[in-house]
Amino acid sequence: MSTNLCPNASSSDPQPILYSYWRSSCSWRVRIAMNLKEIPYDIKPISLIKSGGEQHCNEYREVNPMEQVPALQIDGHTLIESVAIMHYLEETRPQRPLLPQDVHKRAKVREIVEIICSGIQPLQNLIVLIHVGEEKKKEWAQHWITRGFRAVEKALSTSAGKYCVGDEISMADCCLVPQVFNARRFHVDLRPYPIILRIDRELESNPAFRAAHPSNQPDCPPELPNK
Amino acid sequence: MSTNLCPNASSSDPQPILYSYWRSSCSWRVRIAMNLKEIPYDIKPISLIKSGGEQHCNEYREVNPMEQVPALQIDGHTLIESVAIMHYLEETRPQRPLLPQDVHKRAKVREIVEIICSGIQPLQNLIVLIHVGEEKKKEWAQHWITRGFRAVEKALSTSAGKYCVGDEISMADCCLVPQVFNARRFHVDLRPYPIILRIDRELESNPAFRAAHPSNQPDCPPELPNK
Repeated sequence: MSTNLCPNASSSDPQPILYSYWRSSCSWRVRIAMNLKEIPYDIKPISLIKSGGEQHCNEYREVNPMEQVPALQIDGHTLIESVAIMHYLEETRPQRPLLPQDVHKRAKVREIVEIICSGIQPLQNLIVLIHVGEEKKKEWAQHWITRGFRAVEKALSTSAGKYCVGDEISMADCCLVPQVFNARRFHVDLRPYPIILRIDRELESNPAFRAAHPSNQPDCPPELPNK
Repeated sequence: MSTNLCPNASSSDPQPILYSYWRSSCSWRVRIAMNLKEIPYDIKPISLIKSGGEQHCNEYREVNPMEQVPALQIDGHTLIESVAIMHYLEETRPQRPLLPQDVHKRAKVREIVEIICSGIQPLQNLIVLIHVGEEKKKEWAQHWITRGFRAVEKALSTSAGKYCVGDEISMADCCLVPQVFNARRFHVDLRPYPIILRIDRELESNPAFRAAHPSNQPDCPPELPNK
């Protein structure tokens, strides 16, 4: 982190702390963004399954009243909601931008971000699937991911270059890769989405994305790296 | 709309067209933002119920591949996703800002926006409730609105002034008011959320909010203004 790029940070500031769960796609988005911007951070794992979910304990509820991950302690503040956090990082640490300069391309990035972050992920996250029930959860998740991916693929057909919008990595890519992982978990047939698959493959070997992958998290159970 | 504030607009540009449904809370957010910024626009109503939903017809699917409202034709482009649209308006028409200058307040605005737009609304929108089924839909909607409003109220307890964040109207207010309307539709007990209620009451008489209200839309059925 370059302090001259961040008026709110000083060398005496403690390193940011990311409350994260290895398999949470919302935590993963922020991990990618932090890595891309080369912001050092410590991870404080919050297990979404241990003891009925550590995110529901009183102490963590004070950190994030939505009782979910991620939350980021940075610059003396606690931030929640992955999309809000990515925008904060963009506005305080402009190095390696996550949004294009062009206003129409910015709109396209945010469009893809919102399709995924409001149109897909909220409908297939853990707390909703618990509510839907064991029996129906796979079909439910497949339904909403498929619906959303049809729209993402259509959006990408006019916006994508090497990545989601043109040839620069953006917030949209930070959101797409974790969502593809979720789609695979729920055995969604991804063959109708060749652009999504190409971009996911392209980013697989990117060091910032690789370091943020669930299997490389400190709280990933060694026996379940691909679950 | 002041053209010198918008490099992409010229006096020969056609007036923006908003694809909107009177009772859609996502359309409503954008209507408020357009009104606050005093951007003239035409409404093209898309009925979410007529003929199984006009948003699913082939013609509209080309406008919005998510098959939902709103969509905004502006500056020669078609934009979708209400949060992306509000950001586009903010970046091209900075008059009457919807985001504060201070970076931490901006994060707080976006936090509240995301709690509502990814944490509440997607779980209680029409297409999800159809999937949940007639019998369970009221309880389902109440559950997710209540969970989200607990978090919104908590966030507001440290951020609110006259409005959601301080004393200036922001994107967060554009999202809050339609969500309160939805909460009432589903008979959510709002007494535990005094700050939400106070802000909603405060904005009730604001002309930009009043003009955007479902009951003042051209496609609001005269016999059902409060349904």
